[in-house]
Amino acid sequence: MSVTLVLGGARSGKSALAERLTLSVAQGAPLYIATAQAWDDEMRERIALHRAQRDGQGWQTLEVPLDLAAALSDIKDQTVLIDCLTLWLTNHLLAEHDLAAETATLLSALAVRAAPTILVSNEVGLGIVPDNALARRFRDDAGRLNQRVAALADTVVFTAAGLPMVLKGALPPGF
Amino acid sequence: MSVTLVLGGARSGKSALAERLTLSVAQGAPLYIATAQAWDDEMRERIALHRAQRDGQGWQTLEVPLDLAAALSDIKDQTVLIDCLTLWLTNHLLAEHDLAAETATLLSALAVRAAPTILVSNEVGLGIVPDNALARRFRDDAGRLNQRVAALADTVVFTAAGLPMVLKGALPPGF
Amino acid sequence: MSVTLVLGGARSGKSALAERLTLSVAQGAPLYIATAQAWDDEMRERIALHRAQRDGQGWQTLEVPLDLAAALSDIKDQTVLIDCLTLWLTNHLLAEHDLAAETATLLSALAVRAAPTILVSNEVGLGIVPDNALARRFRDDAGRLNQRVAALADTVVFTAAGLPMVLKGALPPGF
Repeated sequence: MSVTLVLGGARSGKSALAERLTLSVAQGAPLYIATAQAWDDEMRERIALHRAQRDGQGWQTLEVPLDLAAALSDIKDQTVLIDCLTLWLTNHLLAEHDLAAETATLLSALAVRAAPTILVSNEVGLGIVPDNALARRFRDDAGRLNQRVAALADTVVFTAAGLPMVLKGALPPGF
Repeated sequence: MSVTLVLGGARSGKSALAERLTLSVAQGAPLYIATAQAWDDEMRERIALHRAQRDGQGWQTLEVPLDLAAALSDIKDQTVLIDCLTLWLTNHLLAEHDLAAETATLLSALAVRAAPTILVSNEVGLGIVPDNALARRFRDDAGRLNQRVAALADTVVFTAAGLPMVLKGALPPGF
Repeated sequence: MSVTLVLGGARSGKSALAERLTLSVAQGAPLYIATAQAWDDEMRERIALHRAQRDGQGWQTLEVPLDLAAALSDIKDQTVLIDCLTLWLTNHLLAEHDLAAETATLLSALAVRAAPTILVSNEVGLGIVPDNALARRFRDDAGRLNQRVAALADTVVFTAAGLPMVLKGALPPGF
């Protein structure tokens, strides 16, 4: 098992960094697990465009908005990029699921994988306290989830302006 | 004198990191100075629960919403964790006190301590400019206070997902 | 050509750090390019005060809200500090200019400079997703611009509480 968490803000370049990291460690075609759900045509188009770009580079793509643990259990030997944990959390919050149980299930699934897993997640706690109670709860839940995954991960990087700062472990040579 | 500043966002794990740091350097029972004021029953319960957990680990607890300098002057030889500076700032802002004077008094009190001091503070300036004028002022004041304390501190760490990045000085071995 | 990008949040000390960096590498009087536009008397006073402080330290000052590339082409051999990119972006957004074209022009102008260039920029993507669509667009554009400039830069630092974390390259000795 090798787990890498790529943290970062909006438009920090975290997804591009995570894709490069995944390609550098993958043996065979990596799997891209998208947790995004398309809510409108604009988003559907963006997702399709991004997918076509990855297809050209040899990726497989799976859309998994909720049950990451089940998806991971089928592909223990394939390198996987999960993009992103923050949307997965949002999907479970909107569905009013038990976050503690979902998180525990996900962590167990990550711990038993044989191939590398790379996870992307948003850091959302570095602004002013939100006015909105739901936003405050989301901010707390997202921060707690990041801590849990970081504790399990071998490597954690914080991304700003497309560049990584290593918080734990080490990046492969060349990063 | 040894002063450590633990900066971080909401739910970044900064308090837990600061508690571990304090226990690793304390000779004898450390003192936990809480700057939080309980505004309602929910907060009172959370504070009591957190305090009971610390009591079990040998901490003493003091609630000091405003006059940190006076509290520190009585216990120069005891290791102290102050959690957190951002709430202390909020308390003085709400009381319409002179922040420049309060900050100068606090910095003087930190400078003459014999035992280690660990301070927790929020980084709040990395989001979009707030709409609200009071939030903008708070953001500016919090950033200036962090800069002043960081300039005095021997060690400054930025926490994300429970993990420290060292900005100044060095952490004890094992962190 | 040597390009340094100083990233940071509000009141993170990024401008003061960038000024010290500029003075440490400048041969002769450095040029300060201010992208801020004074919208009211309070801002006009603050800008005048800041300018008077820099004048005393041997700086020249130029106010360039929009056309940085033209300004830079006239002074290829003078060390320049641009403070800040985020306001420059805001000015172009308000003027409804083509950001992709403006960014390309700026990057070309940076690439052909002979003397050092130091740029200050805000990191604004580490809070909760803004409610406001314009704020979300600005956040995306600012993040993309930071990534583009960081890719070109020799040195990139992230500033918190007045202290730099090096993301790329290295700071001169003494920082």
